[in-house]
Amino acid sequence: MPHLSGIITLMTDFGDSDIFVGVMKGVIASINADARVIDLTHKIAHFDTESAADLLRDAYPYFPKGTVHVMVVDPVVGTERDILAAEAGGHFFLAPDTGALWPILHDHPDARVARVTNTEYFLPKVSKTFHGRDIFAPVAAHLSLGVGITILGPVAEDFLRSGAPDPEPLPGGGARGVVTRFDAFGNAITNIPGEMVGTGNLVIRVADQTILGIRPTFGAVEPGQAVAIVGSFGRVEICVNRASAREMLGIERGAPVEIYPEERVA
Amino acid sequence: MPHLSGIITLMTDFGDSDIFVGVMKGVIASINADARVIDLTHKIAHFDTESAADLLRDAYPYFPKGTVHVMVVDPVVGTERDILAAEAGGHFFLAPDTGALWPILHDHPDARVARVTNTEYFLPKVSKTFHGRDIFAPVAAHLSLGVGITILGPVAEDFLRSGAPDPEPLPGGGARGVVTRFDAFGNAITNIPGEMVGTGNLVIRVADQTILGIRPTFGAVEPGQAVAIVGSFGRVEICVNRASAREMLGIERGAPVEIYPEERVA
Amino acid sequence: MPHLSGIITLMTDFGDSDIFVGVMKGVIASINADARVIDLTHKIAHFDTESAADLLRDAYPYFPKGTVHVMVVDPVVGTERDILAAEAGGHFFLAPDTGALWPILHDHPDARVARVTNTEYFLPKVSKTFHGRDIFAPVAAHLSLGVGITILGPVAEDFLRSGAPDPEPLPGGGARGVVTRFDAFGNAITNIPGEMVGTGNLVIRVADQTILGIRPTFGAVEPGQAVAIVGSFGRVEICVNRASAREMLGIERGAPVEIYPEERVA
Repeated sequence: MPHLSGIITLMTDFGDSDIFVGVMKGVIASINADARVIDLTHKIAHFDTESAADLLRDAYPYFPKGTVHVMVVDPVVGTERDILAAEAGGHFFLAPDTGALWPILHDHPDARVARVTNTEYFLPKVSKTFHGRDIFAPVAAHLSLGVGITILGPVAEDFLRSGAPDPEPLPGGGARGVVTRFDAFGNAITNIPGEMVGTGNLVIRVADQTILGIRPTFGAVEPGQAVAIVGSFGRVEICVNRASAREMLGIERGAPVEIYPEERVA
Repeated sequence: MPHLSGIITLMTDFGDSDIFVGVMKGVIASINADARVIDLTHKIAHFDTESAADLLRDAYPYFPKGTVHVMVVDPVVGTERDILAAEAGGHFFLAPDTGALWPILHDHPDARVARVTNTEYFLPKVSKTFHGRDIFAPVAAHLSLGVGITILGPVAEDFLRSGAPDPEPLPGGGARGVVTRFDAFGNAITNIPGEMVGTGNLVIRVADQTILGIRPTFGAVEPGQAVAIVGSFGRVEICVNRASAREMLGIERGAPVEIYPEERVA
Repeated sequence: MPHLSGIITLMTDFGDSDIFVGVMKGVIASINADARVIDLTHKIAHFDTESAADLLRDAYPYFPKGTVHVMVVDPVVGTERDILAAEAGGHFFLAPDTGALWPILHDHPDARVARVTNTEYFLPKVSKTFHGRDIFAPVAAHLSLGVGITILGPVAEDFLRSGAPDPEPLPGGGARGVVTRFDAFGNAITNIPGEMVGTGNLVIRVADQTILGIRPTFGAVEPGQAVAIVGSFGRVEICVNRASAREMLGIERGAPVEIYPEERVA
């Protein structure tokens, strides 16, 4: 049995003005009185599985191994979809089968994945509209106590994939990728790792804009100017100093980003 | 002495942009270093005791018995009102005497209730405007350590009542009740239990609207259409698929809701 | 070695819609699995060091001694500034050297202060833009485990000062001070302690307005009327009953506030 940290993280689109998140924590405490719950965020935009998936992939490595990470960003309520439990990189994950875990599973080809079907680990009464309370919370609590994912249901041979295609290096230190999410400041975070990009003079193309160079910080340009940096999660970000790149540059999630050596553009 | 869970839940109208909630947790930790505090919500609308009462009644059963539930949604600051401590259904409650605990006390005729007057369990200095810190937090911490409610003050023989009248069954599987709160999506939650309502063809009347049938989920109707369902807390809800029933149907809290068998309407 | 409470408080301007705060908690849990983290607030306005400093000074005394208080309200990202660790009044503090700790250090002339430079207590890889995760969180976790502040770096002989000048008593029970922050209701909180002010008839002057008397609560005046009270943190506050003093009276942070005996005004 792998190490368990006793920590459960929660990421949902439930907001914080209702009792939904608190009630999930009550269910968890009723099953594992010693579990410690840490909120990642409950302000995912409704149905925005792609941003949630990208955020979870960035967040989980900062937690102790043996942590259970729960994501409840569900498709339209009441529709049928499976729930996946996964063990990958020493962590446990629980999320709807919407592609939400794909970025993490893709990074860990040796991950073990199960479809959560064993109602023994659900609340006795399962509502149609609040699986966070009735399935996710109790199953997470049992995972945090050492219940193995294969006890939760049959191995999942396949599952939905979503998210961006892998970034590709381009000749001369360039790279091609996409915008995978925006942060609260409107910075556009791409899937291009900083290490994939060369150190020479580069040109970034996104949303019909051209940005010169990858700078150390966005303070390197004047307020209102666009700039590319390597962000705090190690990936290229498109920013506007003291403003929102999303709004100022009209970038949308999924927008292609291409980085070329300067001479190639000319 | 009843079982104690060591958990304290908090529900307030303090929001999350000031230090009010954090300071309450500091006071609790200073008295019971092992207490675990779980936020229900701090985004109750100011003075909206009725919604808070309805939310707490739905939330507390999902916590372990022996949990202390604290509600600080106070009338106009500075006015006089008592604070009640109650033991009901194996849980402990602390709230202003505004009717906030009435729905729970009404469900538990054997509840024990006291007026909190024993200043020994308050902070040494009690301000006029922040009883959450000076009275509620320290008293909750002492409750979580096993101080009995009768030690906190004299038995409360009577207290304010608020909230909706009991829902009533109507002939033929119908029922009559009221809207008790709205959730963050604008769904109107009634006090009519799903079990009170028959399984035949029903018609729902609310705010001069007529809705046909109680459906399994609100995905059963087209976007923008009104629908009635049995919600995740087991009560009839009036919804609009992908929109706010509160806004689209002009429903207000307290609005009467009547459910009839279809033939009776014709 | 001083007593340690095992509690770490967090105050940031990170908001709650991203993973920033959750990731800090993951880092803390990875270093001190038993640390308990309490959020003060993550909704400080960007760069508003002065309000954060004033809030922290009011909040920390309500926590057990030996608590570590972390403030991450940073100047423009990417610029150089030091990080200070301090031990004052039996508490530990960690904040950028922006003047943020000045109000607390000013209250404790015997405080010990160090510049945090020992990278042994940082994450192995320090990003340019997320010191909350890479420096503040791990250093706070080590402080909560008993690492002394002088191990973190050299003693800080001097540091930035900010915040208001000390309030001064005026003849006849009056006082002179400034507005140091606003609460979520728009009440203007001053740095004038309630005890500094006399009990006779007083006149308050702020932003070209004249307010008569310090009242027990703001319910003492009609809705829409300005009133001065001694607030829950013991300082004079300028309020408007059921409205925002900030908006209604056009008060700005730093505005001078003068309190005179009534006869002196006439």
